[in-house]
Amino acid sequence: MITPILDPARQEPLYEQLYDFIKEEIRSGRLEEGEKLPSKRTLASYLKVSRSTVEMAYAQLADEGYIRAKERSGFYVRQAERKFRRRQDSVEAKTPSAPERSYRYDLRTSGVDTAHFPFTVWARLSRETLSEYGQELLRATHPQGIERLRQCICRYLYDFRRVEAEPDQIVIGAGTEYLLGLLIQLLGTEKKYAVEEPGYPRVHRILTNYGIHPAYVPVDEEGMAVEALCRTDAQIVHVTPSHQFPTGAVLSAGRREALLQWAQEEEGRYILEDDYDSEFRFLGKPVPALQGMGAPEKVVYFYTFAKSLAPSLRIGYMVLPKNLMRAWQEKFQGYSCSVPSFEQYTLCRFMEQGYYERHLNRMKTLYRGRQDALVKALAVPGFRVIGRDAGLHFMLEVASGSMKEAELVEKAARAGIYLRGLGDYYAGTGGQNGPPRLLIGYGAYEETQLVEAAKILLDAWKGEQEG
Amino acid sequence: MITPILDPARQEPLYEQLYDFIKEEIRSGRLEEGEKLPSKRTLASYLKVSRSTVEMAYAQLADEGYIRAKERSGFYVRQAERKFRRRQDSVEAKTPSAPERSYRYDLRTSGVDTAHFPFTVWARLSRETLSEYGQELLRATHPQGIERLRQCICRYLYDFRRVEAEPDQIVIGAGTEYLLGLLIQLLGTEKKYAVEEPGYPRVHRILTNYGIHPAYVPVDEEGMAVEALCRTDAQIVHVTPSHQFPTGAVLSAGRREALLQWAQEEEGRYILEDDYDSEFRFLGKPVPALQGMGAPEKVVYFYTFAKSLAPSLRIGYMVLPKNLMRAWQEKFQGYSCSVPSFEQYTLCRFMEQGYYERHLNRMKTLYRGRQDALVKALAVPGFRVIGRDAGLHFMLEVASGSMKEAELVEKAARAGIYLRGLGDYYAGTGGQNGPPRLLIGYGAYEETQLVEAAKILLDAWKGEQEG
Repeated sequence: MITPILDPARQEPLYEQLYDFIKEEIRSGRLEEGEKLPSKRTLASYLKVSRSTVEMAYAQLADEGYIRAKERSGFYVRQAERKFRRRQDSVEAKTPSAPERSYRYDLRTSGVDTAHFPFTVWARLSRETLSEYGQELLRATHPQGIERLRQCICRYLYDFRRVEAEPDQIVIGAGTEYLLGLLIQLLGTEKKYAVEEPGYPRVHRILTNYGIHPAYVPVDEEGMAVEALCRTDAQIVHVTPSHQFPTGAVLSAGRREALLQWAQEEEGRYILEDDYDSEFRFLGKPVPALQGMGAPEKVVYFYTFAKSLAPSLRIGYMVLPKNLMRAWQEKFQGYSCSVPSFEQYTLCRFMEQGYYERHLNRMKTLYRGRQDALVKALAVPGFRVIGRDAGLHFMLEVASGSMKEAELVEKAARAGIYLRGLGDYYAGTGGQNGPPRLLIGYGAYEETQLVEAAKILLDAWKGEQEG
Repeated sequence: MITPILDPARQEPLYEQLYDFIKEEIRSGRLEEGEKLPSKRTLASYLKVSRSTVEMAYAQLADEGYIRAKERSGFYVRQAERKFRRRQDSVEAKTPSAPERSYRYDLRTSGVDTAHFPFTVWARLSRETLSEYGQELLRATHPQGIERLRQCICRYLYDFRRVEAEPDQIVIGAGTEYLLGLLIQLLGTEKKYAVEEPGYPRVHRILTNYGIHPAYVPVDEEGMAVEALCRTDAQIVHVTPSHQFPTGAVLSAGRREALLQWAQEEEGRYILEDDYDSEFRFLGKPVPALQGMGAPEKVVYFYTFAKSLAPSLRIGYMVLPKNLMRAWQEKFQGYSCSVPSFEQYTLCRFMEQGYYERHLNRMKTLYRGRQDALVKALAVPGFRVIGRDAGLHFMLEVASGSMKEAELVEKAARAGIYLRGLGDYYAGTGGQNGPPRLLIGYGAYEETQLVEAAKILLDAWKGEQEG
């Protein structure tokens, strides 16, 4: 429908205003050649003007050749002067984080395999959700997400991560940006925050977008240096204990205890535990989440299904301690759950019927094979693999040689491989001083592809391991 | 699976640690009577312990009667001491905004009819989306939402709301809370904001949750009093021009111009136009959006599909001026789109194939009939209906009589009808001083039901219109 502003108070009669408007629409190309205009009756009723107003405007336009009548069919646009092209000064809106060049292998840490996602099952469960719940799907859900899904999550969390939570403590939401954002609003932007260094650029960005300048706590092979955290004035710390991002370190038992103690020493201290790819653990015993280690009132646990299911699903959740949960309900009263009920019901079925567990087991085997293949292909003197206990990426240290991190990245890029150096993950302090370290995300490729990628990398860096 | 922390460094042997853990699980009722334990082989492999460790723990548990072996089947939990009930001190997590009592008619302003949503069509399009896009649905989408949906939205906005926008200026997101939150982060919490008074409690809550103390601009029958806005030091104003919430006023032509002029007078001033139920306009000519009235660089346009489609879909969008769009892309680099690709593709089909327009037309007719029926039923001396030009609620003024707003609300509640008084929507200033005004949301009920509800109301307030 066309929507001109027709003003009876203006000097020109209404039909002329309508005529002017439609003419401009045609000239600018917004009404295109061959397009059908609304019938006189429809337009008159829509614009709340008399039918003769529309008739006169259409007649005038037809007279001047802008539109023409087809018998028993209506009026059609005749000439479109296509001078005005609306796309001319469009905002450049490419995916901002996409690499500029085109690469043969994109080894970014966020690479996930979606080819093995049991899509047929998911589609079937989706259809079942549609037919079983029907209209029910249209009703607004509980602000924290549907109860049954929260129950599934609790069961899973307890069985596999030893997280102690009740459904009432779970908040389901559309990804970390939103959930962490809400939590920051809850805890307050005036609080002192700390993050791991090197760490998650996205978490850093979320914090700084809230005007927070966090303290930076160094990370070594045992994970975050808790003794350094104790020297800051931070009250809230974001940490990735199961698989430090990006170094891959697992927070040691001693540090875990120290961290929980730090949190308990003062009122208002909280640990934000990001358990982002904990389910893919390859070596050693399962490491339970911090949340279940004795001070659940001090830990907010974050999880997203982006890596274990698919990035496009936009379902994550957080587990809040009970006291924070009450404050949350107070503060965000009237906020809606940000995940559509359809996805929630479908995920619920997927978990209840055992598909989630099976999928994780399958992917774990698959990813382990890929990691093994790639690590083996990179087992060359001068290179060292770090942080491969868990997760979908590891770190490759180039122990000898003269090339800097940036040169190695650039050489890889020229050979068609996208990867990043550890230096990119330092947000606050000077950057990394050790030998060059590269982050290798292997989740998105098959074993044979990874072996080829490794060969390309080693070729590109030739001279380096010999240097 | 069960996930104990087994620590070889502890004094007790591993099997004893495992035994202790499982015993505690059974005692607490977390492992329930009749539940099957993992096979020895599975558990040993999962925990990375020897099979004999598991064997010894299971044997001990069986000896003590906690579990028992069934031949060729495995081990099962035998006794569950159900002393520990985890649900005991659960956080009360009822939907916080739900009315406490149970009502016969819930006339809240957010009432929407979902019974007439063309669910069969939506379900069919959903199935088509699943089969056509398949695995594609798993990939992360453009951070602003899929291009095709943004194109549909632009077309609709231009045709019906006269909003001038290109797909690159649209950001699709999971509802107002998230989108307005991002915008506040973009514009800055240190800026001066203004809201309508009375106004949208949720918008007020979102602002205050960001630590913002807005200025309050009064509203009369012409909408927001722009001359009062000019006397504040506000730089950003949130306004509902098409159908002021909650009074139902439509911003007059003169005020529209004044508002745009105000925004243009100083750099950094912006109008946040909330066009929340503009599609349901019943009287007078269509009123185009402010955004298209000549200063699109000064207006951020907000829309949610919660009322026109269904509250559970969680799809909304905002249209940013180009300069802000560039800043948005910079600031939120790496943020994911918060709406699942599945819903985006399905909505896209729904719009492209003309169902959206048809649905809106149908609902408009339906809602208009409901409004008419209810207004007619309330056409009694002493009552006056205000703000019925558009939208799914109007205001009922009780012109004469001695009862206060709160009493009228309470009497209605006792008679089984939930509604709210205008006073509830004053956030900053003293409240409303005029005659009692009640907000009546009629979207959720059929005509005959509304007529009955009106009868109940008038009965409950008897004596009032006679007083």
